[in-house]
Amino acid sequence: MRKLLFIILLITVNVFSQNEDEKQLKKIYDASLTKGQSYEWLKYLSNQIGGRLSGSLNAEKAVKYTKKQLDSLGLDRVWLQPVMVPKWVRGTAEFAYIETAPGVTTNVPICALGGSVATPSGGLKANVIEVKSLDELAAIGPEKIEGKIVFFNRPMQADLINTFQAYGGCVDQRSSGAREAAKFGAAGVIVRSMNLRLDDFPHTGGTNYGDLQLDQRIPAAAISTNGAELLSSLLTLNPDLQFYFKQTCRQFDDVLSYNVIGEIKGSEFPDEVLVVGGHLDSWDLGDGSHDDGAGCVQSMEVLRLIKETGYQPKRTIRVVLFMNEENGLRGGRKYAAEAKAKGERHVFALESDSGGFTPRGFSFDCSDENFARIEGWKSLFEPYLIHLFEQGGSGADIGPLKDDQIVLAGLRPDSQRYFDYHHAENDTFDAINKRELELGAATMASLIYLVDKYGTLK
Amino acid sequence: MRKLLFIILLITVNVFSQNEDEKQLKKIYDASLTKGQSYEWLKYLSNQIGGRLSGSLNAEKAVKYTKKQLDSLGLDRVWLQPVMVPKWVRGTAEFAYIETAPGVTTNVPICALGGSVATPSGGLKANVIEVKSLDELAAIGPEKIEGKIVFFNRPMQADLINTFQAYGGCVDQRSSGAREAAKFGAAGVIVRSMNLRLDDFPHTGGTNYGDLQLDQRIPAAAISTNGAELLSSLLTLNPDLQFYFKQTCRQFDDVLSYNVIGEIKGSEFPDEVLVVGGHLDSWDLGDGSHDDGAGCVQSMEVLRLIKETGYQPKRTIRVVLFMNEENGLRGGRKYAAEAKAKGERHVFALESDSGGFTPRGFSFDCSDENFARIEGWKSLFEPYLIHLFEQGGSGADIGPLKDDQIVLAGLRPDSQRYFDYHHAENDTFDAINKRELELGAATMASLIYLVDKYGTLK
Repeated sequence: MRKLLFIILLITVNVFSQNEDEKQLKKIYDASLTKGQSYEWLKYLSNQIGGRLSGSLNAEKAVKYTKKQLDSLGLDRVWLQPVMVPKWVRGTAEFAYIETAPGVTTNVPICALGGSVATPSGGLKANVIEVKSLDELAAIGPEKIEGKIVFFNRPMQADLINTFQAYGGCVDQRSSGAREAAKFGAAGVIVRSMNLRLDDFPHTGGTNYGDLQLDQRIPAAAISTNGAELLSSLLTLNPDLQFYFKQTCRQFDDVLSYNVIGEIKGSEFPDEVLVVGGHLDSWDLGDGSHDDGAGCVQSMEVLRLIKETGYQPKRTIRVVLFMNEENGLRGGRKYAAEAKAKGERHVFALESDSGGFTPRGFSFDCSDENFARIEGWKSLFEPYLIHLFEQGGSGADIGPLKDDQIVLAGLRPDSQRYFDYHHAENDTFDAINKRELELGAATMASLIYLVDKYGTLK
Repeated sequence: MRKLLFIILLITVNVFSQNEDEKQLKKIYDASLTKGQSYEWLKYLSNQIGGRLSGSLNAEKAVKYTKKQLDSLGLDRVWLQPVMVPKWVRGTAEFAYIETAPGVTTNVPICALGGSVATPSGGLKANVIEVKSLDELAAIGPEKIEGKIVFFNRPMQADLINTFQAYGGCVDQRSSGAREAAKFGAAGVIVRSMNLRLDDFPHTGGTNYGDLQLDQRIPAAAISTNGAELLSSLLTLNPDLQFYFKQTCRQFDDVLSYNVIGEIKGSEFPDEVLVVGGHLDSWDLGDGSHDDGAGCVQSMEVLRLIKETGYQPKRTIRVVLFMNEENGLRGGRKYAAEAKAKGERHVFALESDSGGFTPRGFSFDCSDENFARIEGWKSLFEPYLIHLFEQGGSGADIGPLKDDQIVLAGLRPDSQRYFDYHHAENDTFDAINKRELELGAATMASLIYLVDKYGTLK
C-alpha cells in the first residue's frame, strides 16, 4: 500500500512537472511571438550597423550596441572579454572578365576570398585550368598548372536534403584550393561559389594558406554560380581563353576586439554555467543578417525571455556573442581558454549559427546518456513543430569548450535557403522572416529552460 | 517449423519491400532536386502569364499552357473539362484616404475584396466605426452603424504556430463582414488584411453577400496592416474622422473555362483513381506563385516523376488543375459531379494549396483505419525531414469528392511565410525557393507512390 502511494505520488509529481514544463514552453513561445525583441535588435544590427568583419569599425559598433542592449535587460552581469583578432580588408571592389579572343571580354562577378592576398596592382591575366576537386588537381600535376589560374568548379550536391552536408562536401575547394594550387605553381585561384542556386552573387568565405610563405601565396576569389557555368562552357569551346581579375585586399596586424557576455546568476548551482551564443562578426559583403546576426539576437532573446516569463534559473545562464568566427575563431578560443583558466564549470553550450529560418530541432554533441535524457523532452517541443533531435556537431564557437562532460548543441533551422545568402551580398535583413527568427529564439530558450531545470549528467 | 519459415518469409518480403520503397523514394527526391521541372513551369506560369483570376484572359492562357505541358509528358490521356466560372473584374486601381480634418488627408493602401460591388462613381466618404468581430458588430446594433463604414480590425493571432489556424480565426471578417454590416445599414466595409506582418500590402480574398439583393450590397475592401494600425490609432484621437474609398470592380456573367486533367492509366486496378491537384486560378494582384501556381506545378511534377523514375502505377493516377477555387469552387464541384455521374471510383485525392514552402508533412481526412495504415509509412519520409502526419482537413478543391471511403489529403508545408504573400501583390515568383518547391513535389509523389502500391482500405 505504501509502495502504491509512493508510485501514485511519483506519477503525480511527474505529471505536474510535465504540465509545468508545457506551460513554461507555452509562455516562452507566446512571449517571443507576441512581444519579442529579436527582430528589432536584428533590424538595428543589420540596417544601422551592417556587415561586421573582425577588426572593422562596424564590428566595434556592434560590440557597443549589443553590450548596451544587454545592459538594459537587468541581467546580473554584463561585460566585454578582450580578444585580439585578425584584420583583413577587402579594398576596392574586385573586377574580373573572361577574354575569349584578344579584346573580346565578358565581365563576371567575383569577390576575393577572406584572407586572400591581392593580385598584382595591374591585375592578373592567365589561362585557366578547370578542376572538380583537390584530387583532380594533384593528379594533373605541376607542369599543366604552372602559371595558370586554377578554376575549382565542383557544385554543391543538390540531392542532399541537408544543405550543410552539401556545403561540407564542397568547401575544401574554397578553404584549401589556393594553398594546394600554389604548391603546383598556379598563378591564382577562382572558386565556384558555395551556393545551390544559379545566380549572380559571388560568395566569399575564408581561404587558408597553411604554412605557405607570404611570397608563395596566390590570390583567390569566388565567382558567382552563373559566372562559373559561363566560364566552364566557354572553356569547352576555347580551352585557351584567358581570365583576368584584380583585387586589392590586404591583411593588417591583429587588433583588439571583444566577446560580449551577459549572465543571469544561478540560484542553486551558480557554478554550473550554461552558454547560449552566436557570432557577432560577419563577412563584409552583406549585413550578416542570417550569418550570424540572427544567432546573436536569438541568444540575447533567450535571456530576455527567461526574465520576461519570470523564470528563476537554478544554474548560471550566460549569453556569449563571439567575435571572429568567420576568419579566425579567436573569440571562441579565447572564451574557452579563459573559462578553463578560471576553473569555470561549463555543463552546456548551445549555438545558433545556421541562419534565422524556421527551427526544426537540435543537433547534440554529447554522451549517449545525456542524449537519451534530452531526447526524453522531445514531446514537449512537438506542439511547436520541432521534431529533430539528433547526435552530431554543434557550433564552431562553442567547439573549444568541448570536454567529456559538457553537452554541446546546435540549433538546426530549415536549411533550404541558407546557402542562397551565406557570405554573399544578399545576406541582408529583408531575407529575415520575423516569425521564423522568433520561433528559433523560443526554441532555444525552451531547451535552455529544460537543461537548467533538470541539469545534465556527469 | 513451417510456421517459422512462413514468418521468416513474411519478414523477408517486408524488409525487401521496405528497401524497395526506400529506394523508390530516394529516386523520386533525387529526380525532383536534380532534374525537376516544377520550377521552370512555375517561372513561365508566373512571369510569362501572371495572375490568373477566373474568367480572365490569363486564366485561359494558363489552361492552354498547362495542357500543352501535360501533353508533352507522354501521359495516357490529357483533356480539358469545361466548367462555367464567375467573372469578377477589379477595374481601375482602388484609392483611399483617411480625412482627419477637412482637407487633411493621408492615403492608405486598399484593394477591393473579390466579389465586392463598386463604390459610387465619385467614391464613398463616411465616418468609421471600428469593431473586432462580427459579434461586436451585432452588439453595437443598427443605430450606430447606419451610414458608416465598418472597419473590421481583429489581427491574426501571432502566438498560434500554424498560421492557417490564425487565418481561420480571422477570415470571417473578410468573408462575412460586408454581408453582416449591410444588414445594419452600413455604407461600406474596410477589413484589416489577413497578414501577420505589418506592411503596406492590402490582401484581397473573397467576400460573400449571401442572399442579399444587389441593391443591399455594400462595397468592401481590404486595407494593409500598416494602414489598419494607422486608421485605428487615428480613430482613438478623432472618432469623427472620415474614410474615403473608391473602387470600380464589377461582376460579369459567368464564362466558360476548364479544369486541366491528365492521367496515367493503372496497370492492375485502372478503375481506382488517385487524384493529385492544385488550383490554376489565382487572385489578380500578384502572379499567384504560392497560391496556387506552386500546387499546380507540383501536381504536374508528381506525374512526371512517376514516369521519370520508371514506376508503373497499378492504379490510375490523375493530375487535376482545378479552375476557380478562389471565388466559386466551380472547378472542384464540377470535377466531383462528373466523377459521380460517370461512376468513377476515387480512392485518394491529395491537394497542394498551402504555398511552395519546405514540406513538413500531410493532413489526412479519412477513417482511423486508413490513417493508421498511412502513418505506418512515416519512417520512410524521415530522411526527407517530413515528420507531420495528422488527421484534419485536406484541400478545398478535392472536398467535393468526399465520401465515406475516399482518403483526402493536404500537403502541409511550413506555414510561417505564407500569409506574407497570400492574395497580395507580392505573391510573385521571386518569393519561391526552388528547392523548397521541389521538395514539396517529391514529398507528394512519394505519398502517391505508396498509396498506389499499397492501396487504401474500404
